[in-house]
Amino acid sequence: MKRILIIGAGRSSSSLIKYLHQHAAGFDWEIVVGDLDPETTGQRIGHTAKLIRFDILQEEASSQAIAQADLVISMLPAKFHILVAKLCLKHGKNLLTPSYVKSEMKALEPEIKEKGLFFLNEMGLDPGIDHMSAMKEIDAIKAAGLELLGFESFTGGLVAPESDDNPWHYKLSWNPRNVVLAGQEGIVKFRQEGKYKYIPYNRVFRRTEIIEIEGYGTFEGYANRDSLQYIDRYHLHGIPTIYRGTLRRPGFCRAWNVFVQLGMTDDSFEMEGLQEMTRRDFTNSFLYYHPSDSVETKLFHDQNIAQDSEIIPKLKWLGIFDNEPIGLERGTPAQVLEHLLKEKWLLLPTDKDMTVMWHKFTYRDNSTKRVIEKHLSLVVTGEDPINTAMAKTVGLPLGIAAKLILTGKIERSGLFIPTLPEIYEPVLTELEEHGIQFKESFKNPE
Amino acid sequence: MKRILIIGAGRSSSSLIKYLHQHAAGFDWEIVVGDLDPETTGQRIGHTAKLIRFDILQEEASSQAIAQADLVISMLPAKFHILVAKLCLKHGKNLLTPSYVKSEMKALEPEIKEKGLFFLNEMGLDPGIDHMSAMKEIDAIKAAGLELLGFESFTGGLVAPESDDNPWHYKLSWNPRNVVLAGQEGIVKFRQEGKYKYIPYNRVFRRTEIIEIEGYGTFEGYANRDSLQYIDRYHLHGIPTIYRGTLRRPGFCRAWNVFVQLGMTDDSFEMEGLQEMTRRDFTNSFLYYHPSDSVETKLFHDQNIAQDSEIIPKLKWLGIFDNEPIGLERGTPAQVLEHLLKEKWLLLPTDKDMTVMWHKFTYRDNSTKRVIEKHLSLVVTGEDPINTAMAKTVGLPLGIAAKLILTGKIERSGLFIPTLPEIYEPVLTELEEHGIQFKESFKNPE
Repeated sequence: MKRILIIGAGRSSSSLIKYLHQHAAGFDWEIVVGDLDPETTGQRIGHTAKLIRFDILQEEASSQAIAQADLVISMLPAKFHILVAKLCLKHGKNLLTPSYVKSEMKALEPEIKEKGLFFLNEMGLDPGIDHMSAMKEIDAIKAAGLELLGFESFTGGLVAPESDDNPWHYKLSWNPRNVVLAGQEGIVKFRQEGKYKYIPYNRVFRRTEIIEIEGYGTFEGYANRDSLQYIDRYHLHGIPTIYRGTLRRPGFCRAWNVFVQLGMTDDSFEMEGLQEMTRRDFTNSFLYYHPSDSVETKLFHDQNIAQDSEIIPKLKWLGIFDNEPIGLERGTPAQVLEHLLKEKWLLLPTDKDMTVMWHKFTYRDNSTKRVIEKHLSLVVTGEDPINTAMAKTVGLPLGIAAKLILTGKIERSGLFIPTLPEIYEPVLTELEEHGIQFKESFKNPE
Repeated sequence: MKRILIIGAGRSSSSLIKYLHQHAAGFDWEIVVGDLDPETTGQRIGHTAKLIRFDILQEEASSQAIAQADLVISMLPAKFHILVAKLCLKHGKNLLTPSYVKSEMKALEPEIKEKGLFFLNEMGLDPGIDHMSAMKEIDAIKAAGLELLGFESFTGGLVAPESDDNPWHYKLSWNPRNVVLAGQEGIVKFRQEGKYKYIPYNRVFRRTEIIEIEGYGTFEGYANRDSLQYIDRYHLHGIPTIYRGTLRRPGFCRAWNVFVQLGMTDDSFEMEGLQEMTRRDFTNSFLYYHPSDSVETKLFHDQNIAQDSEIIPKLKWLGIFDNEPIGLERGTPAQVLEHLLKEKWLLLPTDKDMTVMWHKFTYRDNSTKRVIEKHLSLVVTGEDPINTAMAKTVGLPLGIAAKLILTGKIERSGLFIPTLPEIYEPVLTELEEHGIQFKESFKNPE
């Protein structure tokens, strides 16, 4: 019997646990889920796994639990993976996470390799399925002797059209804090037509691109942090255009930008006198003083928003002009905004979410001089607010990778992201069996 | 004989050294100037002080030099004061600096007090003369039984009108790096008419105020970091309005805001391929890609700048559209911008700078219900690019404080800023003898 320890059973872990549970009997696995609050987790996941209390900050107990596992999957908030990784190193255990490799994880690489361990990170949707689907196509383009001129890639976690009933065309299927802080990880860097380009936070939500996906309509994409690092990661040295972004429905970014401009997404300081403030007071604290003008008028004037702008119904719908108490004792502006959004953008019991991924590859056939543009698109719709498309597209790649590791199908040691054929080939194939399948289309650029 | 050790002989130290030199014989002082580059310093300050090589990062030698002093004045970049402070504590020496008290300095307070030492920080112009002139007035208003309703204060280091020959009406009289990074220290906080207000970096240079100073014309002021901390520091609990800012000539902030908006003041990452880039390429890297449009057109369109806007001659004059190499091997956007500004905004040998300070106190006489607005303004003009108004207004308060300490006129122990009458009274009086004198005016608000 092999024991799989899943640490942290938040929103994105339901499909992972379900997948492992379905395979547990056949492969003789024991699934253990460690969470801060095992009781609530039990109500959500039923009897599909053994539940233990697990607090990564309690080193002794964490160390013991990890020592008893054959494979560890960390679903904790990204900042805690490093603590799990160090204990996995100590006890010689393989590790899977859906999160970005940060420098402190990267620093462990020699030791992971030396101990013959396999740490696979960025194994969810974005990062995860984006890497695998992109690398498969990039490797195929190179193998065919074609010259890659551009790679653009966008992903979004959205609400399914049938559950879309608000002016933002958005609901929350993942960590709301990340939605509020999006774009604040550092200046956006990318390359376009051979030139390096930079976009600061205050321009990110205005420099958007329009993307059409057949059958699903129009989306807008805003740029993501450092696209340049993918030149190395995807072996794209010399590529003239590389750009990665996030998808929303049209109009979202322009309205969101109002919060960015006013400072409402700032997470660097605690606001004064929050407990006595209404939502309207919160908004007013980012606007100039005027003895008689309304908060609405000041905001529309300050942000140069026309009276018939589609931004206005979005802002009003979120309740930022309401005379209702905020309902927080203390917090940063970002925490206040998150608090309001969690309430308004909640996935209701009958709601379905939707994850969307779209890649564009531009390449030249140097024998015919023809330039071809190929699009790959993936749209996955969730079942309900627990079995979301987000949980499925994050959890299944992790589950499949766990199976590959435990059945000895991957024989590597070191620190990886899923850009190798021996990882992406079997995972993408099995994802297709679960209906996670890209559609291809072609277009010749004008 | 008492030995005064001045550490760091940069731009702002000339007037300080001159003042101490003039009093050295009378008070039996030895003045020692420690600098990384004593030779160049010697050329600038002549034989007014003994020169030694001093590198704060060489702890052994620094410790010895400080052990031999009776009073230490640190003119190093702000981040190094803490190292000087720790050595002063070790050897039981009093310390003077012109810089803001940071949390690590604040943490030394109990030990300073316990050892009976006197550390006086924020003893230059801003911070420095601003504290002293404001506190004198605030104490007088309170002593007269009047109710203070508002305090606003602005300071700027500018170019004198007779040397003003560029469209920005600005030249550099202090650390150019601080000019580029201004506004990036964290969100701006203040209080207006009883409400807390916040301004994020990307709005700071658009939320300006207009200020008139008789005989010197019109200025514009942008808000400075955390004005709320002055409620405690100046004992202004319950004051409805408190606001501190920086002065520029009208039009400066709107044009500077273009750099902020585009990301050119970002200091968080090194740019790619800098050594091959022209100034025009630098600008283009913050603009969208277009196959044929000019960099100028893209910038004016992106930033919504009208063809007849006064921003255009300012940007062109700085050379950001020139096909000239940048001339740096590597650097952040902020470092590139600093490099261009240092060249264009240089004080020439015949140029004079100007420092300007302006306070507004609004108070009510509760016996007559009258509300009165009192303005205090200070304008100091420099002599030349060495004996600047900036050096004079930063250096003289430090020099006078040194005299007060060495002659036993201040008998306090602990960590201070100059908000106590026993400090501000004699310093302001002596500053007047040097022509540093505020003008009063009154106005009844409409």
